[in-house]
Amino acid sequence: MVSQAISNSGVSYFVESELRTFTEAVFLKMGCSMPDARQASDVLLAADLRGVDSHGVARLPGYVRLLEAGRVSVKPEITIVHQTASTAGINAGGALGLVSAPWAMDLAIKKASEVGSSVVTVSHSNHYGIAAYHAMRAIPHNMIGWSMTNASPLVVPTGGRERMLGTNPMCWAFPAGQYPAIVVDTATSAAANGKLEMAERKGKAIPEGWALDREGEVSTQAHVLREGGSLLPLGSVGKQAGHKGYALGSAVDLLAGVLSGAGFGPWVPPFVSFLPMPENPPGHGIGHIFGAIRVDAFRSADQYFRAIDRWIKRFKSCDPVDESQPVLVPGEPELRAHEMRLSTGIPLTKAVAGQLAVLADRWSLPVPVPLR
Amino acid sequence: MVSQAISNSGVSYFVESELRTFTEAVFLKMGCSMPDARQASDVLLAADLRGVDSHGVARLPGYVRLLEAGRVSVKPEITIVHQTASTAGINAGGALGLVSAPWAMDLAIKKASEVGSSVVTVSHSNHYGIAAYHAMRAIPHNMIGWSMTNASPLVVPTGGRERMLGTNPMCWAFPAGQYPAIVVDTATSAAANGKLEMAERKGKAIPEGWALDREGEVSTQAHVLREGGSLLPLGSVGKQAGHKGYALGSAVDLLAGVLSGAGFGPWVPPFVSFLPMPENPPGHGIGHIFGAIRVDAFRSADQYFRAIDRWIKRFKSCDPVDESQPVLVPGEPELRAHEMRLSTGIPLTKAVAGQLAVLADRWSLPVPVPLR
Repeated sequence: MVSQAISNSGVSYFVESELRTFTEAVFLKMGCSMPDARQASDVLLAADLRGVDSHGVARLPGYVRLLEAGRVSVKPEITIVHQTASTAGINAGGALGLVSAPWAMDLAIKKASEVGSSVVTVSHSNHYGIAAYHAMRAIPHNMIGWSMTNASPLVVPTGGRERMLGTNPMCWAFPAGQYPAIVVDTATSAAANGKLEMAERKGKAIPEGWALDREGEVSTQAHVLREGGSLLPLGSVGKQAGHKGYALGSAVDLLAGVLSGAGFGPWVPPFVSFLPMPENPPGHGIGHIFGAIRVDAFRSADQYFRAIDRWIKRFKSCDPVDESQPVLVPGEPELRAHEMRLSTGIPLTKAVAGQLAVLADRWSLPVPVPLR
Repeated sequence: MVSQAISNSGVSYFVESELRTFTEAVFLKMGCSMPDARQASDVLLAADLRGVDSHGVARLPGYVRLLEAGRVSVKPEITIVHQTASTAGINAGGALGLVSAPWAMDLAIKKASEVGSSVVTVSHSNHYGIAAYHAMRAIPHNMIGWSMTNASPLVVPTGGRERMLGTNPMCWAFPAGQYPAIVVDTATSAAANGKLEMAERKGKAIPEGWALDREGEVSTQAHVLREGGSLLPLGSVGKQAGHKGYALGSAVDLLAGVLSGAGFGPWVPPFVSFLPMPENPPGHGIGHIFGAIRVDAFRSADQYFRAIDRWIKRFKSCDPVDESQPVLVPGEPELRAHEMRLSTGIPLTKAVAGQLAVLADRWSLPVPVPLR
């Protein structure tokens, strides 16, 4: 069975629905409700379609591990702890972030539709997948969506040698008129942990400036984090830890963790398996924060859409360094991957396909069958 | 007269009130009202006190140049174009950003006090000084404040060789309990233009990764921008333009420029004198965006203050790489500068002191007298 999913080239292509059905089945086997299994799978498949291979079904074994360790509630009670007209603090009750985050974002959208803008925090949650998925829910409502989360402590602060922050992404999604939406989604570390995982799966070295080893020296080993190493903040050069990335990552932790009542800093419960659970955490679980901003809450929506279309047109026509490589707007590479993968399939490495086959074997599920 | 202000060492120290009185007098001579002159001066002196020498009275001749060129209205009509319960779009009527930004931030604070959170945009404005000044106005109200602005087009997009974005800062200010507030305030370029100006005043080279020359090659010349060169986005390494900094800088431009109705991208009216005014801009002036978030809008304020104090305590106790260099929290270097400069004075280079003396001479104002 296992060998079916693995081509000789090392990469197999899967039609999206094949992986979606399988992923839903795994979440159902773990005890999730059908709506939750569908929602969680939708987030993972969105990552695979957008080319963010590190955050798609490659992470499914990681979520299974959390579920089996009892760190995730499969029948969570998501409650509003406190709210005002434009805000809400949510306790996710240990839910998958893949489930609690869209729930919270939708509440942010509802509140913004009523009063113009909103901010919603989530505590007691878990890893929420790609930040963009949640922020982008605002787009069909003619709102700008934003989304941030804290994450496994792996990043050193400037001048420190302890792992204190996650890769803590910042994301904003902007609806456009005749063009597709602009989506800004960046880790505040020099590289996301998923990028190191990808390099490791491919047996590649990582660039200098991404990570330090446990002694605080520059490392180009993709597996350095499992040996006590750390990630460097955005803006790092060589072994110099970037103070801007440290500051931005701190802002995310303060908004998503401290404001929400979740764990923060070194007390964020890790998604990665090589880190221990922190003791005596000052808050519950992982924290997220979401916001929605109506584009017609400052001047007319028409004016906004004309302006953003002109922005996109101008940036896409920027004189490129290399004539064969036109300048792209943020989110365009992911959009191109999305279009491509809907037609040619989602590529999975031999290692990832093998892990899915193991999950299939364990619960007697049909192994996802590749296209070719 | 001029020589009075200049010590032999190349740096003179001025008591804050001496520079404040002088700065207010200059703005009054330019035709500003007394409240506006005081407000504008307060922003510049805050920069000097916080150690952000690039954004303090060193910029006063730049503001004078804009005022004399008729690009700033000294008796502006600041109006609310459109508003909802939690938002407002402001037209600053060509005001100094030093005046319109605090006005808009205060409106954001008022709205957040009523409905929990808020977002206020500003169009038709000018350079607003340090982002932190405005965001920090939220702190005494037990709110998180945030502040962003677009700026003179100097930064290349990833893969481009035209100057399309400003250094576009992002800032969040977080009130704390027993500790001082945390203030995150970072340009989304590898280095702020002011840093190059400082290097140039000191006759120093700049590091690789900050700037390209007009041919798109790495430059270490501090004056490279005046010769057609460009700044690189945050995250750049060598000549590689960082895609994360490009994305973050774009988010700022879309929020502060496109959403507000201001100019954006290459059409932002430049503060620096070596760039021409853009033709046929799609919006008015420079744009800003501000937000306020009540810390008690998600759970109790007490819970928030306990959590952020624990965050600060933990990060300050992070094991440092160098035992003599403890890990600092964002905003701590500026706070230390503030405390130091209140007691020992604000250092101005010979060049800056000379420029102030020229302004004094021109309007028959008393030249600021240094401490030593």
